[in-house]
Amino acid sequence: MILMNTNYNNLKESYLFYNIAQKTGKYLEENPGQKLYRMGIGDVSLPLVDAVIKELHEAVDNQARKDSFHGYMPECGDPALRETIAKYYERRNVKLSCEEVFVSSGASDELGDILDLFSKESTALIMEPAYPAYVDANIMAGRKIIHLPSGEENGFLPTPTEETEADLIYLCSPNNPTGAVFSKEQLKEWVDYANARGAVILFDAAYEAFIEEDLPHSIFEVKGARTCTIEICSLSKTAGFTGTRLGYTIIPKDLERSGMNINAMWVRNRTTKTNGVSYIIQKGGAAVFTSEGQEQIHKNIAVYKKNARVLMEVLDELGITYYGGRNAPYIWMKCPDGMGSWEFFDLLLHKIQVVGTPGEGFGACGEGYFRFSTFGDPEDTRVAALRIRELLGK
Amino acid sequence: MILMNTNYNNLKESYLFYNIAQKTGKYLEENPGQKLYRMGIGDVSLPLVDAVIKELHEAVDNQARKDSFHGYMPECGDPALRETIAKYYERRNVKLSCEEVFVSSGASDELGDILDLFSKESTALIMEPAYPAYVDANIMAGRKIIHLPSGEENGFLPTPTEETEADLIYLCSPNNPTGAVFSKEQLKEWVDYANARGAVILFDAAYEAFIEEDLPHSIFEVKGARTCTIEICSLSKTAGFTGTRLGYTIIPKDLERSGMNINAMWVRNRTTKTNGVSYIIQKGGAAVFTSEGQEQIHKNIAVYKKNARVLMEVLDELGITYYGGRNAPYIWMKCPDGMGSWEFFDLLLHKIQVVGTPGEGFGACGEGYFRFSTFGDPEDTRVAALRIRELLGK
Repeated sequence: MILMNTNYNNLKESYLFYNIAQKTGKYLEENPGQKLYRMGIGDVSLPLVDAVIKELHEAVDNQARKDSFHGYMPECGDPALRETIAKYYERRNVKLSCEEVFVSSGASDELGDILDLFSKESTALIMEPAYPAYVDANIMAGRKIIHLPSGEENGFLPTPTEETEADLIYLCSPNNPTGAVFSKEQLKEWVDYANARGAVILFDAAYEAFIEEDLPHSIFEVKGARTCTIEICSLSKTAGFTGTRLGYTIIPKDLERSGMNINAMWVRNRTTKTNGVSYIIQKGGAAVFTSEGQEQIHKNIAVYKKNARVLMEVLDELGITYYGGRNAPYIWMKCPDGMGSWEFFDLLLHKIQVVGTPGEGFGACGEGYFRFSTFGDPEDTRVAALRIRELLGK
Repeated sequence: MILMNTNYNNLKESYLFYNIAQKTGKYLEENPGQKLYRMGIGDVSLPLVDAVIKELHEAVDNQARKDSFHGYMPECGDPALRETIAKYYERRNVKLSCEEVFVSSGASDELGDILDLFSKESTALIMEPAYPAYVDANIMAGRKIIHLPSGEENGFLPTPTEETEADLIYLCSPNNPTGAVFSKEQLKEWVDYANARGAVILFDAAYEAFIEEDLPHSIFEVKGARTCTIEICSLSKTAGFTGTRLGYTIIPKDLERSGMNINAMWVRNRTTKTNGVSYIIQKGGAAVFTSEGQEQIHKNIAVYKKNARVLMEVLDELGITYYGGRNAPYIWMKCPDGMGSWEFFDLLLHKIQVVGTPGEGFGACGEGYFRFSTFGDPEDTRVAALRIRELLGK
């Protein structure tokens, strides 16, 4: 008998962001006092909006008084918040019952936990380049991973072919890292594929609030998705909750596989393995969905979109190919002169003190590309853009 | 290929607390306006202490300003809080490095998540009566469960025998539901067993703050525990965090199995599957460990201990056998006249409107026993005790 889960031995030794931290740490050690322009990790820089702050304070006050104190919360989420989120979907003509909405501590937590519902024998298809945790969580589970590379030939938006064989399908749209967004027609191809094959799509919609054009915010805008999809969302980027933690997951009651109802399974998982999400954070998060909250978060999103435009203008001027930036908070650029992505990382760090994320860290097909996050400080972003223009314009 | 985790089909249909909720709901429907005296689910009734409230407000204020805003937190916990918790252990002469302390969203979340580290082929020994989620989480994983019943013959504190064969060992002390607490000598037997066999102990210390007598608060007070134990703790009962959510887990760096370092595996798990615990909640939780915070939480604990004494006095007067209450927030009483535990539940609900938890819900060997939580309102507890005296004293 082997006591431990030996699948962990199959993980690659280090993690993309860990390597970046090591490299920047070493640079700062060797160049003390240097200011870095950080556009690497996708962390937000603007504080929480007033509507959220007000509710958080009120929640804390409630926890201070016996008559308004909240103990254990319902494991699947505060019923009022579940209702509020269901209503949020109505704007896109998506009808959900509140029991199809689960409150979570965030998309990364949920993407890790939800794999418990699926057998180890199932195969996971991951469209790449991809968020590295998709791959690692499935390696930990011992699941066979099918890498579906994408590239310029399909605008980083792959669709299934006759050879595609997968049981669990990870789709992320707007995409991290490429910023590409699936159209309704492209998503329909995946939905039809999943329904025909009996597969399940894990749809990561963490960046939906950044969509400007007429593109689907939710996969449930596509007919047939209710019988094949789990949608995982987050307030991290939408409302600056990266360090405050809140998200939500949609599991339609129509979703059944192997004769099992996936919504009911998740209820059972949550009631067994959690005691719900913090009352304080849920009350703060609910404010995001009020009209006041929506107005305020969209002002913040507009700041990040301005950052994106500042960078895009420079890339346009330099004639550099890139994806994203418009409907997504990430810009995915082609490294100049056929440079490798870590080579380009080192160049930017050492020559102009700009930190981005090497595309290779998101999968082999990301080699030769580089990701900029647009969540940084506007002034830093402006300086970084000028430095990029100067460095690459020569 | 079966897509779903069919182990979920092996779960029993309903959940202890769900059944209690159904029965009390039905009673209230049939008897509108009746007041119930709830000593069933172990939820706290006192609000968060002032020291915590102050820090929570300050954390919220920090999230409102760009210069003090916190984005992504380190996945394994805020380093300052990890250090603070390591220091908390020094009071009991337990030396921990801060990297051996992991901040969690609470013990139930952690007990669910941590099973990912162990192979499905390992067997889980659960001393019973036990918190039902221990069993269910292992059924979901498809792990073989060895039920180790306890009873009056060993004071509900079983120790390993020559026949015991287990890889993962759940110990909960002070125990939920029985309130029994292992002595150092008894824990030493488990530690020696685990080290000799190469097993791992999951030690649930959620109720350590309720110990009054000279008994171990942490299994790491026992020599040899560093090479065989993971200790899982919670602020839920200690500091009223049931709805606020915070806990911590100790994984010594010396703990290795199958040639794998379990501390390193957990770092990898957390960095892949989470983005850390809310900054706001961590800052609030840190206040629990200050001298001001400790003084305040122990005032609340004293209120619950008073509740325990009120109930114990009545049971003593009635000559009813019970366990716990002294070093634990639960009282585990023998049902009178050989009654079954659900039968006694119905009697208390219908005759005196007191709600407790039937022992059978914690495993077969809990049949014939009944659990009272002492976390209720003091006045309600006093009325319930009087009603119990009147009902059973006849």
